Amino acid sequence: MKEVMAIIRVGKVNPTKNALINAGFPAFVCRACMGRGKKALNPELLKYVLETEELPISNIGESITEGARLIPKRFITMIVEDDQVDTVVKTLIKVNQTGNPGDGKIFILPVLETYKVRTGETIL
Amino acid sequence: MKEVMAIIRVGKVNPTKNALINAGFPAFVCRACMGRGKKALNPELLKYVLETEELPISNIGESITEGARLIPKRFITMIVEDDQVDTVVKTLIKVNQTGNPGDGKIFILPVLETYKVRTGETIL
Amino acid sequence: MKEVMAIIRVGKVNPTKNALINAGFPAFVCRACMGRGKKALNPELLKYVLETEELPISNIGESITEGARLIPKRFITMIVEDDQVDTVVKTLIKVNQTGNPGDGKIFILPVLETYKVRTGETIL
Repeated sequence: MKEVMAIIRVGKVNPTKNALINAGFPAFVCRACMGRGKKALNPELLKYVLETEELPISNIGESITEGARLIPKRFITMIVEDDQVDTVVKTLIKVNQTGNPGDGKIFILPVLETYKVRTGETIL
Repeated sequence: MKEVMAIIRVGKVNPTKNALINAGFPAFVCRACMGRGKKALNPELLKYVLETEELPISNIGESITEGARLIPKRFITMIVEDDQVDTVVKTLIKVNQTGNPGDGKIFILPVLETYKVRTGETIL
Repeated sequence: MKEVMAIIRVGKVNPTKNALINAGFPAFVCRACMGRGKKALNPELLKYVLETEELPISNIGESITEGARLIPKRFITMIVEDDQVDTVVKTLIKVNQTGNPGDGKIFILPVLETYKVRTGETIL
């Protein structure tokens, strides 16, 4: 079993939920979080914006302030079987990809044991 | 060391807290999350409910709507020594087991290193 | 890649955010959580406090009640390259260390794969 940890946009929770059900993966948990990526501010870009008061790309505002503040994100945790990781990752990327910075990240971690509380049994 | 990740019912946080203290494991963190299990809706069951307007089992309502919505859950994280995992898992199952769907899941993950911030020392 | 999981004081989020940027690690997510450490109540200390109504150390109140309640904490998740773990751990300890109980813990977990949603590419 593997843990799929994904950090996605707030507005992408419902589309992600539906895409995962359609792909056969109903089980997951979702939490609110505040996050920040590796976006570095390009000083030339900032100078251009300040001088022209034009925003060359739609998310420039987010880029300029990202260094200083955290942005609300959603943190998704799923536990899936080893041979399902690839399908889940592809499903998550497809539904969350807008092509703009801030689309999110997906991380895969190893899981050693899993238990169902209702029955006490191990899930393999 | 191992990470014990448990997803439990909202109403089970306090009993779990007390059961863990009594078993000698005071340290853990708890977060709110929204979750969904693998509960699949049986179409025959739904047809029966719609035709008879009777709920054959108490949690049928949750079963019917689970596909569409997320249910508030609590997400517990504990870091314990390798030989404590079994006791912690048994304690969590005992206090959280109601026998109904939605009792939760427990996952065990490997931990490579641990540090106590106050002293900067490694915890083995 | 490794996951750095840190549980810190609520008031330390902003200093931690700034220390991480200055150390070259802007990317992380932060969530609210409720937590409890391993602090055991010393009965002699409690007796002293009850008899004298003096608080010998500033955080005695927290110590006395910790057994019974959970304390608001912040839960930080970072994914960093293997050779950056040491620098990140040292940065987190330096900015979060007050020397009092409750400074927090840091745990390192293995990460198997990482993906950037925007491009779909693996991050190595």
